[in-house]
Amino acid sequence: MAIPNSLKRFFPFLDWASSYNRQSFLNDGTAAIIVTIMLIPQSLAYAMLAGLPPQMGLYASILPLVAYALFGTSRTLAVGPVAVVSLMSATAVGAVVGPGGAGYVEAAMLLALISGGMLLTLGLLRLGFLANFLSHPVISGFISASGILIAVSQLKHILGISVSGHNLIDILQGLLSALPQTNFYTLFIGVISLGFLLAVRFYLDPALAKINVRSEWRQFLVKAGPVFAVIGTTLAASQFQLAAKGVETVGRVPVGLPQMQLPAFDMDIVHALLLPAFLISLIGFVESISVAQTLAARRRQRIDPNRELVALGAANLASGISGGYAVTGGFARSIVNYDAGAETPAAGALTAIGIALATLFLTPLIYALPKATLAATIIVAVLTLVDFEMMRTIWRYSKQDFSAMATTIVLTWTVGVVAGVASGVLLSVLLHLYRTSRPHYALVGRVPGTEHFRNIDRHDVETCETMLTLRVDESLYFANARFLEDQVYAAIAQRPNLKHVVLMCPAVNAIDASALESLEAINERLEIAGITFHLSEVKGPVMDRLKRSHFLSSLTGQVFLSQYDAYRFVSQQNETATPETPSF
Amino acid sequence: MAIPNSLKRFFPFLDWASSYNRQSFLNDGTAAIIVTIMLIPQSLAYAMLAGLPPQMGLYASILPLVAYALFGTSRTLAVGPVAVVSLMSATAVGAVVGPGGAGYVEAAMLLALISGGMLLTLGLLRLGFLANFLSHPVISGFISASGILIAVSQLKHILGISVSGHNLIDILQGLLSALPQTNFYTLFIGVISLGFLLAVRFYLDPALAKINVRSEWRQFLVKAGPVFAVIGTTLAASQFQLAAKGVETVGRVPVGLPQMQLPAFDMDIVHALLLPAFLISLIGFVESISVAQTLAARRRQRIDPNRELVALGAANLASGISGGYAVTGGFARSIVNYDAGAETPAAGALTAIGIALATLFLTPLIYALPKATLAATIIVAVLTLVDFEMMRTIWRYSKQDFSAMATTIVLTWTVGVVAGVASGVLLSVLLHLYRTSRPHYALVGRVPGTEHFRNIDRHDVETCETMLTLRVDESLYFANARFLEDQVYAAIAQRPNLKHVVLMCPAVNAIDASALESLEAINERLEIAGITFHLSEVKGPVMDRLKRSHFLSSLTGQVFLSQYDAYRFVSQQNETATPETPSF
Repeated sequence: MAIPNSLKRFFPFLDWASSYNRQSFLNDGTAAIIVTIMLIPQSLAYAMLAGLPPQMGLYASILPLVAYALFGTSRTLAVGPVAVVSLMSATAVGAVVGPGGAGYVEAAMLLALISGGMLLTLGLLRLGFLANFLSHPVISGFISASGILIAVSQLKHILGISVSGHNLIDILQGLLSALPQTNFYTLFIGVISLGFLLAVRFYLDPALAKINVRSEWRQFLVKAGPVFAVIGTTLAASQFQLAAKGVETVGRVPVGLPQMQLPAFDMDIVHALLLPAFLISLIGFVESISVAQTLAARRRQRIDPNRELVALGAANLASGISGGYAVTGGFARSIVNYDAGAETPAAGALTAIGIALATLFLTPLIYALPKATLAATIIVAVLTLVDFEMMRTIWRYSKQDFSAMATTIVLTWTVGVVAGVASGVLLSVLLHLYRTSRPHYALVGRVPGTEHFRNIDRHDVETCETMLTLRVDESLYFANARFLEDQVYAAIAQRPNLKHVVLMCPAVNAIDASALESLEAINERLEIAGITFHLSEVKGPVMDRLKRSHFLSSLTGQVFLSQYDAYRFVSQQNETATPETPSF
Repeated sequence: MAIPNSLKRFFPFLDWASSYNRQSFLNDGTAAIIVTIMLIPQSLAYAMLAGLPPQMGLYASILPLVAYALFGTSRTLAVGPVAVVSLMSATAVGAVVGPGGAGYVEAAMLLALISGGMLLTLGLLRLGFLANFLSHPVISGFISASGILIAVSQLKHILGISVSGHNLIDILQGLLSALPQTNFYTLFIGVISLGFLLAVRFYLDPALAKINVRSEWRQFLVKAGPVFAVIGTTLAASQFQLAAKGVETVGRVPVGLPQMQLPAFDMDIVHALLLPAFLISLIGFVESISVAQTLAARRRQRIDPNRELVALGAANLASGISGGYAVTGGFARSIVNYDAGAETPAAGALTAIGIALATLFLTPLIYALPKATLAATIIVAVLTLVDFEMMRTIWRYSKQDFSAMATTIVLTWTVGVVAGVASGVLLSVLLHLYRTSRPHYALVGRVPGTEHFRNIDRHDVETCETMLTLRVDESLYFANARFLEDQVYAAIAQRPNLKHVVLMCPAVNAIDASALESLEAINERLEIAGITFHLSEVKGPVMDRLKRSHFLSSLTGQVFLSQYDAYRFVSQQNETATPETPSF
């Protein structure tokens, strides 16, 4: 039976479910097992990073994955708790109810619900373009800054000391002053874990390759590194009674699946969470779509950004009602999912089953898991977020873009994540407006003997003292409308013999109402000064719009199809007007 | 003795002072007399509109004019209190210290000082471009909305009732509920004044023309209308003891020149005034520069926007230390000044002397001047601000621009002037970003037998299934970088035989770091999908910048000077690659 396309649009799974077969299931199942093994320690660790009890990380990896499998357009994206969103969640909730304060858990669930509602709304209203305002330097700077902030914030768990604060300065000060309270059992566990994870990450693959282990197995063992660290340190902590020696452990985790329940709605808290929820939604979306597009392109598949918003919205709503917190598509686990051969989003649903089984049966075993191990897992994971090479690249490419990036980084560290992102966005927009407010422009003249017109400052061209041609290489809109006026008035003030001004528009893609007003002002003022105003090489869509105004009828001159037409017209005018060439 | 140009740049008066002669003085003097006569009632009226004692309007018309004469680059701009800035001043100061509250006068002076300081700073830092963010629809909508708001707010003086409120709804409600308290003596004075002023404005000129009165005299009499209304109603009020019958009059105005003094600096008040001061500065500057440019163009003179900022800053600082309030260049009085033959800013200085003499000798005479007369003056003056035709024009030209205008108008009326302007600016920026985030683009093909390439949807062109050419008609930057990616990925997902993608860039004036990142992502993902990525017709400055990145070295394809080159290259590739054309 053919499924109507409209239904497929809302439930993308209908697209692949009909052709789902045993082989697809085997592939998805294999991928699901590998992702589950990778996701268990990550879920526990990111919940800790978010300041939440460990089971919330597991809960956030069950129902949200099912929701994404139903609505997502990416075949291989793996959603769940991720580092940056966990940090943003901790900052937002901590600012509202105080770190670890009463209602902290409920506020985190509420944040997921609000973010989910926003994502869903953005998707249904097709407002995905809003994410575009997060320019690449801002995102990239923010992710790098967050990576360092997260790594530094986890040092307290490695040292076994207690430090609060959400910005780098507070955390560093806290670390320094609490350093004497370092618990050396904890530090030992932490350093061993860190060393082990770094060794696995950087040396395991080549080492196994030497002894001819198959590539898939090598990859699996590398990704399972955190699981071995968790098992090893849990056994050690339990064996040597480290909890009694001051090593903080995960402690009792409730057994069983999450209860379906809505958090309490406190309107003051909802209000305070709106802005952070919006930024979490945008950042989460941008990260997720970028991963999804990377993977989709490899198989020439298509991602629909607005459907992705809906799917991420559904995933966050599912998280918020099932005891989880804010989730998004994760980079590392999606790659693992893809590499492990996942064919369809069913892999995500199978992963959810895996995590659910873990929640049912494994939670009693992690009682003695040291927090230092989880901190080490986080630190090693977030190191990949810090991209110094990108900073160098952007510095070389554009100082303006770099300044937006640097502002984002500095404010993320010194003030907080919301201030960092918000200031970066604002600065990006201002710099864009500033750049286009002073567009590239040139006075042009004719290349002798041709129909070409070039910048008089760069080329040896013919000009004429009764005619001035200005070429503006930018769309004309409010930010540069007056700049254009200034240039024209400056040019005519220096040229007493001027009779014609031509505005050459081959690079003008749009003229807004402000620029139209400026063109009208130029036309009127030039007329008073006895100068005719022409346009040349106006693009079709721009001309169509100009026809909706009175400008063309009040224009003292003409609109020429080519600058050469304008040149010939003015030449003829000069000939008939010159007294040295009497007409009798 | 030649004056160095650097000195002239800072003191533009040096430019004209050296050639000043008797004729210039006579011309400037005549203009000054006419402007003084027009300015006296206006100064009193606008001070009332700003909620200030009448003498502050006069004070604001003395020293600021001298300051502008020293620093201004416009030969004929006349500065002083104007309607819109007076309204904004009343709203800002009223919001901070309460309408007519203690410290109201000092706060208004402080506002002038802050605004002056900002204008001066913007000018010295050459930040005049910031005013560009006030798009024409926003300015135009704001001025129209203010005109109606001002006219309605003055009805209380015509009716002789007491009404407070700074938005249209509050004022209209206040008017309705206080309507029964109407003072009919006041209403009589108000209606007579209104009728007289409207008659003078619309019928006096043609009537006098009929009896062959000379044009200059007609203009003078029309502009002097408010003076006759002031004299007539003052005499009537004084004769019939109208003050005793509840007609509100100006009352005792202190005789003498303003005292030089700084207002008290209360940092809380300063802080609260910063945003309104900034908006007043920008709006005042935009209005002033627009008048100045209109007049300068008539005589092919040059206005330097950044020097104008300095001059307006000096004028406002002068106002703030001499008992005045925020000032800017006024449209009506500048036209009068120009038409009356003013040659140099000395006319402004002479006007200042005129107003100073009025402050010294005329203030005792205006004791009995009814406020209703001043309100009538304001209402007739602000009617010119309301521009319904502009609303229609913008509606026809662009619905986007109209929406920014409508938002400004509605919020100015319902919330207040700051909210109106701020929301308009924000919406303009967002709409600009939205527009450029979905740029015009086209898949193009070759016009058969030519080297031209056109939109495949509009023209009958040749295409080839191994090659896709996308032309984007907009600069590439963060707001549209992902849109470009989406289009490319969508296009390749539908074309299984695709081997080459060409991005045609003749309208791309800039590529920022976000767009560069997108191009790199496209290049990389196309490579994985087995597709070569090319660029064509890249502009010089864009190419220069791309050379600063690694993009060109990682590009799988080439950068072609013309699209035709790209076409020929792909055709050759096809020929060598097609198995039907064996090479042996």
